[in-house]
Amino acid sequence: MSIEKLYGGIEAGGTKFVCVVAGGPGRIVDEIRFKTTLPAETLERAIQFFRPFITSGQVNAIGIGSFGPLDLNSKSATYGFITSTPKPGWGNTNVLGTIQQALRVKAGLDTDVNVAALGESIWGASKGHDPSLYLTIGTGIGGGYVKEGRSLIGMLHPEMGHLRIPHNREADPFPGSCPFHGDCFEGLASGPAIEKRLGVSGAVVGENDPFWDIEADYIAYALVNYILTLSPRKIILGGGVMQREFLFPKVRRKVRELLNGYVSSKTILENIDSYILPPGLGNQSGSLGAIALAMQVDETKDDPRT
Amino acid sequence: MSIEKLYGGIEAGGTKFVCVVAGGPGRIVDEIRFKTTLPAETLERAIQFFRPFITSGQVNAIGIGSFGPLDLNSKSATYGFITSTPKPGWGNTNVLGTIQQALRVKAGLDTDVNVAALGESIWGASKGHDPSLYLTIGTGIGGGYVKEGRSLIGMLHPEMGHLRIPHNREADPFPGSCPFHGDCFEGLASGPAIEKRLGVSGAVVGENDPFWDIEADYIAYALVNYILTLSPRKIILGGGVMQREFLFPKVRRKVRELLNGYVSSKTILENIDSYILPPGLGNQSGSLGAIALAMQVDETKDDPRT
Repeated sequence: MSIEKLYGGIEAGGTKFVCVVAGGPGRIVDEIRFKTTLPAETLERAIQFFRPFITSGQVNAIGIGSFGPLDLNSKSATYGFITSTPKPGWGNTNVLGTIQQALRVKAGLDTDVNVAALGESIWGASKGHDPSLYLTIGTGIGGGYVKEGRSLIGMLHPEMGHLRIPHNREADPFPGSCPFHGDCFEGLASGPAIEKRLGVSGAVVGENDPFWDIEADYIAYALVNYILTLSPRKIILGGGVMQREFLFPKVRRKVRELLNGYVSSKTILENIDSYILPPGLGNQSGSLGAIALAMQVDETKDDPRT
Repeated sequence: MSIEKLYGGIEAGGTKFVCVVAGGPGRIVDEIRFKTTLPAETLERAIQFFRPFITSGQVNAIGIGSFGPLDLNSKSATYGFITSTPKPGWGNTNVLGTIQQALRVKAGLDTDVNVAALGESIWGASKGHDPSLYLTIGTGIGGGYVKEGRSLIGMLHPEMGHLRIPHNREADPFPGSCPFHGDCFEGLASGPAIEKRLGVSGAVVGENDPFWDIEADYIAYALVNYILTLSPRKIILGGGVMQREFLFPKVRRKVRELLNGYVSSKTILENIDSYILPPGLGNQSGSLGAIALAMQVDETKDDPRT
């Protein structure tokens, strides 16, 4: 009997870490979740979790999807670091190097959303549809884009939650909550923006509240801009705000209305219900995406132990 | 004495065609320009121009940068066609196949802006800076993006001139000129939008006219969205409107102001003068880009004559 090959995945969030050992979806062998405290302590917990699997030879590659901003330029002296985050203690933290060196393992790092996009493209809602976009709309807004199995990283990684979109101040006088940009997409449509505007969490706002049309419009404006720039074959919307499923038909309708037939794709004109979708991996896009990244790393990187 | 290897390039515009035979910049051996009339006649003129170079064996690959929309999906039955253009006679025209079959030559097709972006990335202002973005702001607005030497094509090719951006109707009550979207980026900031709004061509509007601040703001809004989505290492702005060089400092200033330190790149924070640039190839980005595409095609495609 052969032992199944396993991989390690870390979903490194600003609030919590999820570490998994898995062979793929439905083949999760072990999992641990813990609060994100200070870097040394938090990364050490992850290291302790993975160590036995590495010692036993079952795992030799780890993928990490992390909150940011990250330095993903492999030629940079701070490659693999969380850079200028406002999260206390985490500025200038060598996440990739710490994991790699402590465990002497192949490891890869990408943004949380790029990793989720990768996971969805391999096992989830965008499987077989390349390129694809994954957007999370929750505490913050971020997007990841995968083309030919690889995430888009340029000079820096994208920060597509901060797009500037039309803001109808008559219908919605809320000035926006982004400390950098005021009424950018995240400043208008993230969970905290909703709560600040309405005084209560979006989770308790009734489905028939007229605010949801405003929210759907903002999401649609951003999606139209991504479609015109990146031309994905699938768009996946995750995150806490998108748990309100009634938003999907509103967003799809508005996207079609805004494009107004300009992007003459049958997918958009006739099949938009299967174009803009919730995640196929539910709340596991991030952790399974990290497993997918580990698989890629395993295929492409040299083993640090040899 | 060896004969220099040459390539054919076609800049297929809605108004005029430029055909060149060249080995690269400064090595243009022959060139012809003619008005875009009906497809059969126009493509035949291009074919006649190239035929002697192909017969002599000097050219065996042609690159085409064309107006669109184009079908660039190689699995599609109408791959290589101009599809639903409003230009009379050109709807459903097999541009790539016509050139390929008449000349029995390797040929490649991409959008005019993707091809210009490619040319700039090989010989122009973005040489050595990958990924890069080329934007033309003229009769229309379009953008091309090159990463690792290849243009971005997704489900369809990008149409990034049609982004939705904030429109300050108090300062600028002009409703926008785009027949599909009204006040999208192209509808607010293209040459025809300027002329429709001011009653005269932008070319004759004085440098101190307050309108130029409005124009620069729209361009900056769009650039910020591209930066946050595509994270290019260089942005090149071409096209008729950008001939007004005083727009560059205005655009750069506004981009920095809008990003507000959020994208913490030294390039943007300290060196924005060399980040947002005019084309390095002047008005030859398109025709030389087509030569660059021909070179790529020559390396990767099989010869149709063998």
